[in-house]
Amino acid sequence: MEMIGSTDRLSLNQITTERWTLQEAVEGCARAGIGWIAPWRNRVAEAGLARSRQLIQDAGLRVSSLCRGGMFPAATASEREARIEDNRRAIEEAAELGAEVLVLVCGPSGTKDIAEARKQVQEGIERLVPYAREHGVKLGIEPLHPMYAAERSVISTLSQANTLAEQFDRQDVGVVVDVFHVWWDPQLYPEIERAGERILGFHVSDWIVPTPDMLLGRGMMGDGVIEIRKIRHAVEAAGYRGPIEVEIFNRQIWDQPGDDVIALMKNRYLEHV
Amino acid sequence: MEMIGSTDRLSLNQITTERWTLQEAVEGCARAGIGWIAPWRNRVAEAGLARSRQLIQDAGLRVSSLCRGGMFPAATASEREARIEDNRRAIEEAAELGAEVLVLVCGPSGTKDIAEARKQVQEGIERLVPYAREHGVKLGIEPLHPMYAAERSVISTLSQANTLAEQFDRQDVGVVVDVFHVWWDPQLYPEIERAGERILGFHVSDWIVPTPDMLLGRGMMGDGVIEIRKIRHAVEAAGYRGPIEVEIFNRQIWDQPGDDVIALMKNRYLEHV
Repeated sequence: MEMIGSTDRLSLNQITTERWTLQEAVEGCARAGIGWIAPWRNRVAEAGLARSRQLIQDAGLRVSSLCRGGMFPAATASEREARIEDNRRAIEEAAELGAEVLVLVCGPSGTKDIAEARKQVQEGIERLVPYAREHGVKLGIEPLHPMYAAERSVISTLSQANTLAEQFDRQDVGVVVDVFHVWWDPQLYPEIERAGERILGFHVSDWIVPTPDMLLGRGMMGDGVIEIRKIRHAVEAAGYRGPIEVEIFNRQIWDQPGDDVIALMKNRYLEHV
Repeated sequence: MEMIGSTDRLSLNQITTERWTLQEAVEGCARAGIGWIAPWRNRVAEAGLARSRQLIQDAGLRVSSLCRGGMFPAATASEREARIEDNRRAIEEAAELGAEVLVLVCGPSGTKDIAEARKQVQEGIERLVPYAREHGVKLGIEPLHPMYAAERSVISTLSQANTLAEQFDRQDVGVVVDVFHVWWDPQLYPEIERAGERILGFHVSDWIVPTPDMLLGRGMMGDGVIEIRKIRHAVEAAGYRGPIEVEIFNRQIWDQPGDDVIALMKNRYLEHV
């Protein structure tokens, strides 16, 4: 199999080493020669924002994205307003950490009315765009697998994410392509082409069979059925040349020592991405 | 809430009372005044085909569909040929039982190449159509939820099922709309309208939150987040007036006495479908 040949674009999404604090993850990346990290907000809060920035900077790492904003729909206007406020904090944090992109996991519906929830997502993004622009942060809409439609995101396909992103200036809003969420989609390749320069991130993992768990069942690249390299080529043909995050929710992987996970991730990245 | 007002169109998909033999399911329907049943092939084989037909006929039931054919893709030509042969048996069984429709669960990919698997599905259906027509049986392509793309069906959206069905005469091939599989789809309503008279079946259950299991986590209507009645109205506006099957894969429901499940199913059908 053709090798990507370099880990220059490889980024550790912090959830892949779920037990590590931000400091541990930063140090783990530095030890392994990985140049990018995607921190999670809860771990940033734990370390403190200014200290997080310092840790990342001192290790010479760059931030591929901040995980995550979104979660726009809610049953009441005041709840939705609180979500907007929280997203403003996320934008500030992304700016402080030097993340070009805030990943948006758009959220489940607050009621049975999924069409209404989708409107609330659009309204939420409209509200955030000026603030994000002021802070030099782009919003990356990440469609989540349809099996998360009830609990995590009413944005379920790349087509839907593209349509939403196209409501806004391409400098402000784009999409994030995560192979785990989109690999099954019969419209995947035309929609990657359509996304073009709006692609703000590319995430990899694998779909393992049988799938051990809906949330914690993602696999290491090469352990499943996703044509990861084919999707990478399509994303690159569309114009994306940015970092490639490895984002794995998997209890078995989380239970392994972080350094082992990172070593395996590097090998699998070279072989399968 | 508006009531559908009658259970005339209600059909028991046999998997909902998974522990019952065909005879027990037929007798359960008769006791509860349910006029339709959708038998599963393994239960028909267990009872014997001729006897199954007799049991259903004697109880005055009609067959809404036979579950199921499909499973077309495979890694080798000889395996694919064996699947075609098995589908021919399914068509014969559907004809013998008086089922107008054989439901197609199209199958997972035999390799990592999902595009190739989708071609194999189309080829499989092409091979079956003449035989199905001879036997007076229609083929109903059922798109399955994308979370089953790796293990059960590479046909994951109604759009895809429609595009596939439209390759064939509307007398031969149509689609089956199951709310559990399609409720999340942002293109659901336009695709139901597009399907129009090709809709050959309508299945109901619910998506419960949190979802206890990927395969056995479907809920009884009313216990989840699906806008079942809204989808029923759309299916009817598209022209469908046939039986409505309740098809529930759920260990907790399976563990209850069948008569209790049927009583609950009738009430929930009147209230939520």
